Amino acid sequence: MLKKIPISTVSRLSLYLKCFTELHIESVEYVSSEDLAERIGLNAAQVRKDLAFFGQFGRRGVGYNIVSLKEEISKILGTHKSWKTAVIGMGNLGSALTMYTGFRAKGFNIVAGFDVSTDKIGWEIDTLKIYDYQDLEKVIKKEKIEIVIITTPKEVLADVMAKLRKTGIKGILNFAGKYMKNEGNIIIRNVDLGQEMEQLTFFLTNK
Amino acid sequence: MLKKIPISTVSRLSLYLKCFTELHIESVEYVSSEDLAERIGLNAAQVRKDLAFFGQFGRRGVGYNIVSLKEEISKILGTHKSWKTAVIGMGNLGSALTMYTGFRAKGFNIVAGFDVSTDKIGWEIDTLKIYDYQDLEKVIKKEKIEIVIITTPKEVLADVMAKLRKTGIKGILNFAGKYMKNEGNIIIRNVDLGQEMEQLTFFLTNK
Repeated sequence: MLKKIPISTVSRLSLYLKCFTELHIESVEYVSSEDLAERIGLNAAQVRKDLAFFGQFGRRGVGYNIVSLKEEISKILGTHKSWKTAVIGMGNLGSALTMYTGFRAKGFNIVAGFDVSTDKIGWEIDTLKIYDYQDLEKVIKKEKIEIVIITTPKEVLADVMAKLRKTGIKGILNFAGKYMKNEGNIIIRNVDLGQEMEQLTFFLTNK
Repeated sequence: MLKKIPISTVSRLSLYLKCFTELHIESVEYVSSEDLAERIGLNAAQVRKDLAFFGQFGRRGVGYNIVSLKEEISKILGTHKSWKTAVIGMGNLGSALTMYTGFRAKGFNIVAGFDVSTDKIGWEIDTLKIYDYQDLEKVIKKEKIEIVIITTPKEVLADVMAKLRKTGIKGILNFAGKYMKNEGNIIIRNVDLGQEMEQLTFFLTNK
């Protein structure tokens, strides 16, 4: 059934999950497609279409069961389990990301940071330890890290990838500003903040 | 014609633009849909379909004219002009964003930062000046700032928005972690880094 979920729906699953999580905290048990649509800024028909992929149809006059859909979407997004995560490059962005509470709430357990600066290597903050970039391969294997977030300059990306290929890393969130394609078994997701701004100015220019 | 461009194509325009910019720097004049597709990790049919919205069809054996498409896409994305930009919240993430070279390259001119910390207020770095958050409304009006990037905690978002509504702000890139819908004439784009991670684990879980 999963194969049939279109990629545009997948990108909205995070929004639904966020909404269900907030509603669950507010002790709400059921929500209508109209209320959900209003909260997310979509139309109700789209919400019903998206949630129908889970075989879930809101019961007339009752709505969608929040706990059940929250669990189902978490499983599909893979956030029902914890992921051991490392950040490569502990500059401003890397530091901001390690302190980002939204990651931990979703099960991303950032246990390691890597940097070349001797000022930073050796620091320990809660469960996070900052290691020498030279030990990247060794530490990732030893700590069984599954996901890395790359915030290095794009000039060192080739070196980072050469090291990562020798580890069992599964996924990369790439902030380095140079687009990378999935590689063998490694899933790579590129985040380009300049691109986010361009999408904003597209709407400003064409509204 | 613009109205007909589907939103999924718009999100790929940034990728094409990036590619054309790189190729232009490499002094390449024409590129085939196959080469373009290979660089971006799409299929060539999708590339031809997307670029057809611009009335541009790659000439057989020659390919797409890079300079011409680069200009056209820049105009559509609104990055052919410079945008006066401010960052609200000068913590780790805010500081990282002000130093992000990708913004300036795309015409986003970050001229102001806002914070509540007296340690930060008054600093000047190149063309950027850090102001007291209390002066937000005044400074945005005076400096004619068009776009703000919000990196504050979500708890203060309501206060930030109350202040921004009194200015002529056009667009917001929101990193505060609470989803906001467009409001009146203000276009709001939400960036949720936890969501980016969820999209990654979706593919890790369902590959």
